[in-house]
Amino acid sequence: MLSRIHHVGVAVADLEESIRLYESAFGAETVHRAVNEQEGLEAAFVRTGDGEVELMGALREDSPVGKFLAKRGPGLHHVAFAVADIEAALAEARAAGVELIDAQPRLGMHGTRIAFLHPKSLGGVLTELVEV
Amino acid sequence: MLSRIHHVGVAVADLEESIRLYESAFGAETVHRAVNEQEGLEAAFVRTGDGEVELMGALREDSPVGKFLAKRGPGLHHVAFAVADIEAALAEARAAGVELIDAQPRLGMHGTRIAFLHPKSLGGVLTELVEV
Repeated sequence: MLSRIHHVGVAVADLEESIRLYESAFGAETVHRAVNEQEGLEAAFVRTGDGEVELMGALREDSPVGKFLAKRGPGLHHVAFAVADIEAALAEARAAGVELIDAQPRLGMHGTRIAFLHPKSLGGVLTELVEV
Repeated sequence: MLSRIHHVGVAVADLEESIRLYESAFGAETVHRAVNEQEGLEAAFVRTGDGEVELMGALREDSPVGKFLAKRGPGLHHVAFAVADIEAALAEARAAGVELIDAQPRLGMHGTRIAFLHPKSLGGVLTELVEV
């Protein structure tokens, strides 16, 4: 059972410019920044009330976000739902036939437990669960 | 100023199948259905706690969602933020240089006032404001 939309992930060409845009256009506030060298990802979470937008820049062209940008251009990348019990949510999704990218929760950039579900069994939507 | 993520819009190939998927995989509940003949759009809003997913099916191939599906395939289509004062939010976005699709709010499928912002000035993200 999902509790709310935790954030949407957006692949961006220029992270600093995107941060400024969300701040000026929407009054959003940057609440967290993180770099994941292994995934070639630099991210900024900008808060919009109770929800967040994860702005995702690529550190390398051959990173997952770099490949996404090359293939589709900047834009919506994934949606993340907050769940109270991530194991229960994963079991429910798996029982419904959803293919899991992460069969077990792992630590996300925010220090929370997360898991990704495969877009091919969810109508093309890369979906993340975040335990809160 | 945005208050939260109101919903994400998802373009789907088969609306009924997508509704069943969100119900079974996520325990989501269908709270509203609507058809907009003029836009060639059939939509179902499925509630996930405080957030909603708008599942969008095309009534015609030459409709906006039909064209989206033909070009990009099913997947994330737009993100909608809740705002308390949509005129103020539009003025703030416009002042930041964001191009507005709807310069004035119009009535959305939910009976609330909405306005879309152009993806080309928002890093490829089609963005909707919903007054709540």
